[in-house]
Amino acid sequence: MGLNELIRSMFNSWMGHEGPEGDIVLGTRIRLARNLRKLPFPRAAKKEHLQQVTSVAEEMAGHLQDFGTISYLKMAEIPLLDRQLMVEKHLVSPNHAENPTHKALLLRDREDISIMVNEEDHFRLQVLFAGLQLNQAWQSISALDDCFEGQVDYAFDEQWGYLTACPTNVGTGMRASVMLHLPGLALVGQLTQVLNHVSKFGLSVRGIYGEGSESYGNVFQLSNQLTLGHAEEETIEHLAKVTMQIIEGERQARDFLKQPDRRTSSEDKAYRALGVLSHARVMSTREAMELLSDVRLGIDLGFINNLEANVLKELMVLTRAAHLQKVMGQNLPSEERDRLRADLIRERLAFGTNRQLK
Amino acid sequence: MGLNELIRSMFNSWMGHEGPEGDIVLGTRIRLARNLRKLPFPRAAKKEHLQQVTSVAEEMAGHLQDFGTISYLKMAEIPLLDRQLMVEKHLVSPNHAENPTHKALLLRDREDISIMVNEEDHFRLQVLFAGLQLNQAWQSISALDDCFEGQVDYAFDEQWGYLTACPTNVGTGMRASVMLHLPGLALVGQLTQVLNHVSKFGLSVRGIYGEGSESYGNVFQLSNQLTLGHAEEETIEHLAKVTMQIIEGERQARDFLKQPDRRTSSEDKAYRALGVLSHARVMSTREAMELLSDVRLGIDLGFINNLEANVLKELMVLTRAAHLQKVMGQNLPSEERDRLRADLIRERLAFGTNRQLK
Repeated sequence: MGLNELIRSMFNSWMGHEGPEGDIVLGTRIRLARNLRKLPFPRAAKKEHLQQVTSVAEEMAGHLQDFGTISYLKMAEIPLLDRQLMVEKHLVSPNHAENPTHKALLLRDREDISIMVNEEDHFRLQVLFAGLQLNQAWQSISALDDCFEGQVDYAFDEQWGYLTACPTNVGTGMRASVMLHLPGLALVGQLTQVLNHVSKFGLSVRGIYGEGSESYGNVFQLSNQLTLGHAEEETIEHLAKVTMQIIEGERQARDFLKQPDRRTSSEDKAYRALGVLSHARVMSTREAMELLSDVRLGIDLGFINNLEANVLKELMVLTRAAHLQKVMGQNLPSEERDRLRADLIRERLAFGTNRQLK
Repeated sequence: MGLNELIRSMFNSWMGHEGPEGDIVLGTRIRLARNLRKLPFPRAAKKEHLQQVTSVAEEMAGHLQDFGTISYLKMAEIPLLDRQLMVEKHLVSPNHAENPTHKALLLRDREDISIMVNEEDHFRLQVLFAGLQLNQAWQSISALDDCFEGQVDYAFDEQWGYLTACPTNVGTGMRASVMLHLPGLALVGQLTQVLNHVSKFGLSVRGIYGEGSESYGNVFQLSNQLTLGHAEEETIEHLAKVTMQIIEGERQARDFLKQPDRRTSSEDKAYRALGVLSHARVMSTREAMELLSDVRLGIDLGFINNLEANVLKELMVLTRAAHLQKVMGQNLPSEERDRLRADLIRERLAFGTNRQLK
């Protein structure tokens, strides 16, 4: 697969679009952990149990016609590199890609619905939306969940709710998250304060590739911690409310950065980042993310006009290791990747306003 | 005067051209300190004495027809900003520009011959050549000196040679210097070693604006220290020999930087510098010089092809304070200058290969 195809594939997915509050919220994701009654959780399951689960999943593909084109994929039949691509596109977890035996995936063609089969739980339903669309995401995943529930017997307890492999998911089994780009708060030095504040509200903040992943380029995932004792709608409303507060803070920071006495240095920072991105011959993931963050802020502040805002989200994914290797069709040592990453960013930025691929 | 005119004026001067060894030697300069017999040196001279000297200089302008169009200029009649421009173009010393009373200048239209009148000595004859042209410069200034000597009575002593205001110039009164760009030696970490070595050969190394001036962007002036006990030709030959050794060292360093395992990082550095120069909105003199040095090396190493090598020398001068103020036609506070410097560099680099002004 070449660069053009990869970029095209971005456009077919939720990542190719800006959603509501898209200048700050890159995307919304909700996932539900679900298990089949009477079968042990995957970690404790025997081969036959796991096969029973994948059989159910394969059947489910046929019942999901209302949701469009959904494919049933056996993870073990997917080449390693393509599995890694799926991780970088947030379609599966790293664990699901690394140990594919008896694992499967139900995937909608637009890549905004994905269901991991035999990951930590029997099913991990996930929907992805561009921008801030918590309610839409919730409606979408509820419908998906209802369709499952009409066909299979979920492990559900009247008192505890949905039963899950890890106790932290018991109850709703839901994790709703928003991916936030907060360069303004970072620049005015209020980011740490805001993120610390968030944890007091029962929410957690992580890097974009989930637990333990580092945050580069001022992009964070904000999600609910609790799955017990609160209805899903309540949890989502709470997350939406805190998100709106953070958005408000980020907007204020950005207004400050546009003020006459700050304007020049904000503009300078954005353009320098664009200059380096469009000229460098070697670039690490971390540096790419940081510079892309600066450029995106420059677009959002109205300093840079001849570049689409979405280029940040696109390049965030395109310049990950597996995507780079997909472009080259081979495994690459790290320094080769740094070189290819720089090439690819230059090539993509050269499109400018006149997107040739759309 | 706008940017276009200023750039055009560069082309009319020695700075607008690349000379021999022009990838390393930006320019060659020789100056001779000369005084009139029977008149006190300027520092001790009375008003009448100084006026006698300027009268002689004014008359000399008429005798220098063989050297082309030479103007006699009274420094006190030149606006401050234009005098500062002359300093930045290496036509006069800072002292000559700052205290213009009773000072004058004989200047060839191409700005490659300039004679300061009543600076530290009665006359400071100077010739400027592009690249390494010590012999040509010596022939040129000798002819000029001979023409003077045919008309005026120099303070000359059979035993000591030419008498000068400062004892360090007594003898030949000559300072020959070459302006060297040594980014290769700097990058491979041998610059300090080479420059220390030079002083053992009776030569001195300074920044580009003479004594006490800092060196930015790996540009250095190498010149003779001794004016006593050696004939001019001998001094020049010695300077040329050491210069050739340094050139050899710089060439080896550059070859090393082009080797396969170093190539990418050398290229990356050059292009990053170009990216920042062509995008930044604020830039200090120091940063501009350093980045221009990186870009120039990238051109010399063959990595950057769509930019003229001479752009470094041109922007080195164009982005100095007085030149910036000339473009704007007004005094500017420092942060305004940093902004204008960035604008001007972007504008100049945007010319690319197709120079519109030539």
